[in-house]
Amino acid sequence: MAARGEDRREKILEVAQCIVLQKGFSTTSIDEIIDGAHITKGGFFYHFKGKGDLARHLLERYLQQDEQFFNNLFEKADALSEDPLQQMLLFLKLYAQAMEDLPGAHPGCLVAAYTYESQQFDDEIKRLTAEGMLSWRELFEERLARIAARYPMRIEVSLTELADMLTSVIEGSIVVSRVFSTQAVLAEQLLQYRTYLRLLFNDASLLS
Amino acid sequence: MAARGEDRREKILEVAQCIVLQKGFSTTSIDEIIDGAHITKGGFFYHFKGKGDLARHLLERYLQQDEQFFNNLFEKADALSEDPLQQMLLFLKLYAQAMEDLPGAHPGCLVAAYTYESQQFDDEIKRLTAEGMLSWRELFEERLARIAARYPMRIEVSLTELADMLTSVIEGSIVVSRVFSTQAVLAEQLLQYRTYLRLLFNDASLLS
Repeated sequence: MAARGEDRREKILEVAQCIVLQKGFSTTSIDEIIDGAHITKGGFFYHFKGKGDLARHLLERYLQQDEQFFNNLFEKADALSEDPLQQMLLFLKLYAQAMEDLPGAHPGCLVAAYTYESQQFDDEIKRLTAEGMLSWRELFEERLARIAARYPMRIEVSLTELADMLTSVIEGSIVVSRVFSTQAVLAEQLLQYRTYLRLLFNDASLLS
Repeated sequence: MAARGEDRREKILEVAQCIVLQKGFSTTSIDEIIDGAHITKGGFFYHFKGKGDLARHLLERYLQQDEQFFNNLFEKADALSEDPLQQMLLFLKLYAQAMEDLPGAHPGCLVAAYTYESQQFDDEIKRLTAEGMLSWRELFEERLARIAARYPMRIEVSLTELADMLTSVIEGSIVVSRVFSTQAVLAEQLLQYRTYLRLLFNDASLLS
């Protein structure tokens, strides 16, 4: 029973996220979610106190999945090379490949979606989105710092800003991908950022 | 009278854009816009048929202002140098400076906002957003092609993707700036993109 309840909760969150990313949070109704997830209203309220509670759990789940996804890719990259620059370049390549394998255009980023309806959310949600994005900055910056310790930059830039550029490129290319209804944009842009890193840190293959 | 009508129409659009970028289009009510613009309901409907009509005019105005802003900056850059690479680097510097001078965090991009509520809009609006973003691609790509004709790239990349990277960086850093509630992100990221171009096209100052 506990497992089935957990499945049902997960199903609600999955359906809700899909609808929210298509039409925005404020116009997503609990009735639509119930219909999509094939549950009763009672089933919904067994798991969530209401829309505000749903918003928070959606975001927490999204950030957790994102963290897992990034950690998983970095683990793979780290297993393929000992060099911090190559690890980062591999991470970006693996990330781009994963985005190419998506069945369609990227469904959208929940953090960006919430931000474009920021007046709908309380301070707790705003704090969580900022915390989530900050954890991406820290994750990327820590990797970049390891690179910078070994490779001098051709032009000195801030590592925090360089880390934020990856977040910006991801968020921005999701928007571009949605507007153009083409899937390739996110992978392409991750590889542009990768080229930037290769040039900035003088990737060895460029010196030959 | 005609001039006053035009002023009032502009005021409605300005107030509406501000509200839409804060809370999303779907939950923005005509009553709120009327209150904010200090006009009557009749005054609103004299200028717009309804919310759908308002959505289209908001977008058209936004895209026109953006085009004007870009053209204005390129004109300034072109007056300062004859070299296509320097013109682009100047454009990015002037753009970054303009973003630093904003009174607060960037208010948001209407194209991105609409995209995160895409189910709320008809095909005409979707066509307009795609056209608008396509015009940015063309504008940037044409500039990059002029650079590439004179400067060999250190790593060969697609000029279309390089042009889309500027759009991605702009859209993405607006999201990051909103999430972190800090104004500096957009300017910082424009300068990161600028550094990428300098490295990619071997800016002369790097050769010394």
